[in-house]
Amino acid sequence: MLNPQGIALDNRELINSYLGVRQKTLDICKPLEVEDMVVQPASFVSPPKWHLAHTTWFFVNFVFHRFGIDYTWPDKYFPQLFNSYYKSQGQHWVQGNRGELSRPTVKQIQAFRQEIDEIMVSWLDRFNGDIPSEIQTVIRLGLEHEQQHQELLMMDIKYILWCNPSKPAYFSPASSRRGSAFLNPAPKADENETWSSDGGLQQFGVDLPSAEFCFDNETPQHNAYLQPYVIAHRTVSNGEFSDFIADGGYQEPSFWLSEGWDYIKENNINAPLYWCLEEGEKERKGKWQEYTFNGMEEIRRDVPVSHISFYEAYAYAKWANKRLPTEFEWEHFAKSNPSSKNITVRETSELFLENNLAQAYYPDETKSFVNVNGGLWEWTSSTYAPYPGYRSEKGAFGEYNGKFMINQVVLRGGCFATPRAHYRMSYRNFYQAHQRWAFTGLRLVEEKV
Amino acid sequence: MLNPQGIALDNRELINSYLGVRQKTLDICKPLEVEDMVVQPASFVSPPKWHLAHTTWFFVNFVFHRFGIDYTWPDKYFPQLFNSYYKSQGQHWVQGNRGELSRPTVKQIQAFRQEIDEIMVSWLDRFNGDIPSEIQTVIRLGLEHEQQHQELLMMDIKYILWCNPSKPAYFSPASSRRGSAFLNPAPKADENETWSSDGGLQQFGVDLPSAEFCFDNETPQHNAYLQPYVIAHRTVSNGEFSDFIADGGYQEPSFWLSEGWDYIKENNINAPLYWCLEEGEKERKGKWQEYTFNGMEEIRRDVPVSHISFYEAYAYAKWANKRLPTEFEWEHFAKSNPSSKNITVRETSELFLENNLAQAYYPDETKSFVNVNGGLWEWTSSTYAPYPGYRSEKGAFGEYNGKFMINQVVLRGGCFATPRAHYRMSYRNFYQAHQRWAFTGLRLVEEKV
Amino acid sequence: MLNPQGIALDNRELINSYLGVRQKTLDICKPLEVEDMVVQPASFVSPPKWHLAHTTWFFVNFVFHRFGIDYTWPDKYFPQLFNSYYKSQGQHWVQGNRGELSRPTVKQIQAFRQEIDEIMVSWLDRFNGDIPSEIQTVIRLGLEHEQQHQELLMMDIKYILWCNPSKPAYFSPASSRRGSAFLNPAPKADENETWSSDGGLQQFGVDLPSAEFCFDNETPQHNAYLQPYVIAHRTVSNGEFSDFIADGGYQEPSFWLSEGWDYIKENNINAPLYWCLEEGEKERKGKWQEYTFNGMEEIRRDVPVSHISFYEAYAYAKWANKRLPTEFEWEHFAKSNPSSKNITVRETSELFLENNLAQAYYPDETKSFVNVNGGLWEWTSSTYAPYPGYRSEKGAFGEYNGKFMINQVVLRGGCFATPRAHYRMSYRNFYQAHQRWAFTGLRLVEEKV
Amino acid sequence: MLNPQGIALDNRELINSYLGVRQKTLDICKPLEVEDMVVQPASFVSPPKWHLAHTTWFFVNFVFHRFGIDYTWPDKYFPQLFNSYYKSQGQHWVQGNRGELSRPTVKQIQAFRQEIDEIMVSWLDRFNGDIPSEIQTVIRLGLEHEQQHQELLMMDIKYILWCNPSKPAYFSPASSRRGSAFLNPAPKADENETWSSDGGLQQFGVDLPSAEFCFDNETPQHNAYLQPYVIAHRTVSNGEFSDFIADGGYQEPSFWLSEGWDYIKENNINAPLYWCLEEGEKERKGKWQEYTFNGMEEIRRDVPVSHISFYEAYAYAKWANKRLPTEFEWEHFAKSNPSSKNITVRETSELFLENNLAQAYYPDETKSFVNVNGGLWEWTSSTYAPYPGYRSEKGAFGEYNGKFMINQVVLRGGCFATPRAHYRMSYRNFYQAHQRWAFTGLRLVEEKV
Repeated sequence: MLNPQGIALDNRELINSYLGVRQKTLDICKPLEVEDMVVQPASFVSPPKWHLAHTTWFFVNFVFHRFGIDYTWPDKYFPQLFNSYYKSQGQHWVQGNRGELSRPTVKQIQAFRQEIDEIMVSWLDRFNGDIPSEIQTVIRLGLEHEQQHQELLMMDIKYILWCNPSKPAYFSPASSRRGSAFLNPAPKADENETWSSDGGLQQFGVDLPSAEFCFDNETPQHNAYLQPYVIAHRTVSNGEFSDFIADGGYQEPSFWLSEGWDYIKENNINAPLYWCLEEGEKERKGKWQEYTFNGMEEIRRDVPVSHISFYEAYAYAKWANKRLPTEFEWEHFAKSNPSSKNITVRETSELFLENNLAQAYYPDETKSFVNVNGGLWEWTSSTYAPYPGYRSEKGAFGEYNGKFMINQVVLRGGCFATPRAHYRMSYRNFYQAHQRWAFTGLRLVEEKV
Repeated sequence: MLNPQGIALDNRELINSYLGVRQKTLDICKPLEVEDMVVQPASFVSPPKWHLAHTTWFFVNFVFHRFGIDYTWPDKYFPQLFNSYYKSQGQHWVQGNRGELSRPTVKQIQAFRQEIDEIMVSWLDRFNGDIPSEIQTVIRLGLEHEQQHQELLMMDIKYILWCNPSKPAYFSPASSRRGSAFLNPAPKADENETWSSDGGLQQFGVDLPSAEFCFDNETPQHNAYLQPYVIAHRTVSNGEFSDFIADGGYQEPSFWLSEGWDYIKENNINAPLYWCLEEGEKERKGKWQEYTFNGMEEIRRDVPVSHISFYEAYAYAKWANKRLPTEFEWEHFAKSNPSSKNITVRETSELFLENNLAQAYYPDETKSFVNVNGGLWEWTSSTYAPYPGYRSEKGAFGEYNGKFMINQVVLRGGCFATPRAHYRMSYRNFYQAHQRWAFTGLRLVEEKV
Repeated sequence: MLNPQGIALDNRELINSYLGVRQKTLDICKPLEVEDMVVQPASFVSPPKWHLAHTTWFFVNFVFHRFGIDYTWPDKYFPQLFNSYYKSQGQHWVQGNRGELSRPTVKQIQAFRQEIDEIMVSWLDRFNGDIPSEIQTVIRLGLEHEQQHQELLMMDIKYILWCNPSKPAYFSPASSRRGSAFLNPAPKADENETWSSDGGLQQFGVDLPSAEFCFDNETPQHNAYLQPYVIAHRTVSNGEFSDFIADGGYQEPSFWLSEGWDYIKENNINAPLYWCLEEGEKERKGKWQEYTFNGMEEIRRDVPVSHISFYEAYAYAKWANKRLPTEFEWEHFAKSNPSSKNITVRETSELFLENNLAQAYYPDETKSFVNVNGGLWEWTSSTYAPYPGYRSEKGAFGEYNGKFMINQVVLRGGCFATPRAHYRMSYRNFYQAHQRWAFTGLRLVEEKV
Repeated sequence: MLNPQGIALDNRELINSYLGVRQKTLDICKPLEVEDMVVQPASFVSPPKWHLAHTTWFFVNFVFHRFGIDYTWPDKYFPQLFNSYYKSQGQHWVQGNRGELSRPTVKQIQAFRQEIDEIMVSWLDRFNGDIPSEIQTVIRLGLEHEQQHQELLMMDIKYILWCNPSKPAYFSPASSRRGSAFLNPAPKADENETWSSDGGLQQFGVDLPSAEFCFDNETPQHNAYLQPYVIAHRTVSNGEFSDFIADGGYQEPSFWLSEGWDYIKENNINAPLYWCLEEGEKERKGKWQEYTFNGMEEIRRDVPVSHISFYEAYAYAKWANKRLPTEFEWEHFAKSNPSSKNITVRETSELFLENNLAQAYYPDETKSFVNVNGGLWEWTSSTYAPYPGYRSEKGAFGEYNGKFMINQVVLRGGCFATPRAHYRMSYRNFYQAHQRWAFTGLRLVEEKV
């Protein structure tokens, strides 16, 4: 599943990385009230306290048990409650019912985290610098896993806060200026440039062993043939998307996939998630507001549109007489344009989840790659499928990726809430076509004539 | 809706009663964690924090607005969020979605309560002893309403705690002995006595003005004709009910109403709510355990069976070749037997919600009436319908009772969690036939030959 | 369940009655296409071919098996497919899935009917006039049962035809004039007279043995006490009901039971079933049309409103500042006014299901009783409950009535589609509060001051 | 959407082809009872009479209207009732509610078909041999469309008949021997041969204009790169699949996609659709029976397994340590092996839907291609996506394919019920991953080492 020849760390470095990632998760929850950590207003959302416990369960279940660290759960139901979906690891609580549980409390979960962290550190400490690669591998996976949950936490927190009619902000007013900078990166007005490729036979994915960490779904490296294509340097903006709305985009079935049309009609969807009109305004011409981590704000036309489903991305592209890129076109474009001038997230040092992160695995160089996208995951036209020659791991880790390879769409890039370590050209994110609570945007492509 | 010639209190007495009831609600929540106050594991349950806010909303909405007390809500969404179902009072948040809300927090709601209490007390204080009867009436209704919610709180708390696999206790071990005494009153082994009546034309309900407070659904007083009947002095016990189970009661359709049979089969019900078997045990012969406010306990055969639906009560009675009493038989029996020796709750002074309650409205005499029932509401065979000549109030208070008079079954008596003031012969409680989270039991009747 | 001392018939009379009722069922289906007999557009409707088979199953299951008539089902699945809900009679096909079955075909079911009829007749013939009372009893029940299904057939056929956008008529144009007369009985314009009663202790129900046939739910005879009341001589008219609509009746929650309000809002109900507006018309003021057995017709203000739910009847009564009668008030009124001049169905000899019916059980005298109601079943305010002392039969016939005594509302009277034999003062029909496809109307009552 | 330079026919040839295809549709329905043509036991099935009407609607809507043939619908609701899903063509009746309609009757629909056929023939007759290519194009599309519905008819009929507990046969006993030959083609016992390919850059799809008819989803021709692979010459057999069942395949989550596992557990699926055990048998070891067009039969181990979902195909392949082919591997294999000796359908002259078909478009040569597959559509691992450069048509025909390109899986080949004209290497069929009522099978692939 992951690179067995990854960076070897001595135990001090490993402990620092471990503690850095673990602390980051807690930091994300700091602005929350206890109540925010408990509720589950939609089945796809998890209570933040569940994320805190599940990421910890991962270490007990896969590190403690595998390497013989003796441990008694605080409660015999923990393994079941905090197993997400690993069938090989016994029963798991139904995902949609996580919000029914008032216990264990947030405090009890925090104590559980601290207890595990102490055991981990004291255990790692005993190695005197020389940590076996199998242990490094599993701990590394645990940290990558926890970082994925950091982004999920940001998604879930945004949804949870938004469900309250009072629309509370996540950022305090003091911090909001900085947050705002990330959330609303400003592309330049003249940024309509495109990049043109002749396509041809190209190489994609990663072969093991590789220098960088990767998930099994990025392997193996293989060839694929691209037709010539022309791709935009930037993602679609709020302004452009509101033109689509004003032009009746949500009322004209010919722009939509059949399933998408049914979905928006059944769910009364007529704008991106988190958009709403001021009272008394009409849909097509109204003044749109958007819920952000700062609360309700008027939309800014020049920032990338976000929180759209694949259905909406597809419909927009069809309205614009273009299309979405395949995941291979996206990867080819990204690798070919590491320092695109059409940057939309300008200062990587401010990337939200990056600050204060332990630096051992993730050296401080600015990854030019993040320049390519607009601080958002980008829908591709590719469905989530195994690469040719893909083999999922044996055992529990085999459940990490492979079993989800149906009826999901690939997103590429990474968003402002993605830990910097997860920004890589080959990373394959995936959601179902109707889902909108991830930080998603879209980039347009057209055939090269 | 309520007795306009009720007991007149001076303002000191009224303030004391008000503060006593209000404090009781908070006391009930003391053993809870913040997390317990937020979740809504079933649509019929409300988060405890919602009860705290809704009972307060009642005073703002019906006292402040009616009598011109100037007030600005802490948040413009409060009126909508904490309106339960009063259509005349504007929009209300969907009941089943109360658990989606993390805000306002428990602390904010407690501050809201305190603010309202301070305004109320300082306003009442200004009257110098002479409080107009209209004001007394509405405040009295607000307090009766809050007391109804105290019992609902106990029901909801039990359900919420039980949903956690760890089955946490509500009572601390120190207090549990006392609690246990109420929850598990022990009838004597020889208590199989019955009471026989010749029936005939009898009077039921209450005429206004009356000495005691009552709800509009208890009015007016009227005649009804009873056939001769024989009624048990005590309610059915756990032991008797487990015999019904062991005899295949949940597997034999002929005992059940058609709708009840479908309900238990669809919901895999084979015992009262809160009963479960030790692992590995079989349904019919197994050792039953029961979740109580003390956590999981082995069932005690000699205490009244509780948390059964009307469907289950009906099926048990049919299995026993008897039937449930009508609400009129029950009332006639209760009035005729104020000091039944078959007491099942022995020491009324310890009734759970009674202790420390302000005594102005509710003088300290022991109500012999509570002797009649087993500390449980009792299902009758009567559906909830208006008494002949019933008129619901005009305006919002008209929504209190009348609009629920369809597809509900009347329960009579009162339970250990019922405020003593609500124990009266004429009180009509009501639930839907499938509901089981109230503290419900059953008493048997047969025709007199 | 039924009167064991009923009219004794010799075998010729019994055969004639049997054949008459059986033929009537077929006659009702004559205007239908094969396709109309197969579909099930709603779960509460049954395909007409199912009624043909089920009423025949009844004789095989309860007569052939009980009295040792040897018989092999045409197909081993018949017993399961055509058992409606008798748990004691083995498995039964899920009611809502009856429309999934294309087989057995209509022809096969007709052949099955004919086969059973031939066996029955030849078996009865052998008795030479002297038929044991137990046999008479069961056959009589089978015929009463089939007559109940004749009315259900009319209800289901109307619903099935109406589901087709072309709104085909049931009556051919030639016959429609006669049909129309029944469906649209015209009350006189001055018929606003009422009847006033002092109430008091009265007798209701039937004691066995009785002269007339009855179902077990009409027994035993017993006393009930009535308050004084004033009741209308006629049912509410289309004109009156459309005034309720025009006055915003469907938009004002205070007229409605809480459950009724939720139901009409969830189901977008704003008029009786089968009413619709001409295109472009607005709800409150528009010209209403109504689907009848003759196809779409403009509503006639002077005929009784029909196809309303109990919720709608309740709301109308509340809007009119009146209420619905209890089932005892209705029965008392009907018995006291056998020849009311406010007739709304004028010529009983033309009652739809009466013509050509075998006359043995049902002598030809005009039952004055039908004059009382408007050719419609009338919602009462009484829920369907056992009479004091009620005992359901042992065995399968015990499933006929008793197990439905929850969450149903009693209707009294009988409609133009009710076989004349079922018109009796004590008959208790019942439907759920939301149901509208029966031929239902309402009559108003108020307290006597 | 389709090849504008298709075979040009003179009007006599065109009329013959038209009449041939139209008659075939009626022939398919001949063994049915009227009742079989009306019911809709699942929302994905359509009543056969609907297919008869919809395929006729297609000609009125796209030929008559486009080329100015004057026509008045028999009923103003026909356009809505028989529009399947063309949003651009106005309202359409909800698919899942087609079974609610008893009218128009089968006879009326047959008359409608005949009327349209007469108008078409007399209109085409007037051209005197020289039919404009635009007309040829649209008529050809109408015929291809009708042929697709012929296969759908076979699928729906099988499902409809099977829903009846009596499991009636479609074939009469006389014809069943021949039918059986198709349904149960016998592969040789030694047919475990595979074909090995080095992959590489290959050409797929079709460029317009092409010699053969095709749908727009098969265009344009383009390159794709294949990894080396090894593919089986025959599809998986019933015997092999029952070994998978016996080995606990439906009980072991690690073989399944997460979504597939949830689906089979929620729907209690433990064998292919139409398989069932003799009573009293246990799942893993029992004797399986299968519903075929001949009724219930014991499964034959040596015939291809059919009626499996993509989920089941995937799980089987994983259990066998292999995988499904991509649609490109399948196409490459098929083109490279036009006369595979591992034939599984032996006598193409008997292909079910081929007999008696008008031969103008479809000359009589045996297409060697059908030898490749086992008389079944084969699940690939490819999701249904546009080919690079794909453009859907403008207007209504643009709704034919493109709007379904999400959450569907591509199947390749063709089945015994597929009209011969649709057997082509480039044809792309598609169903959702859970669907099982199509004639589906699977073929295994593995990486070449």
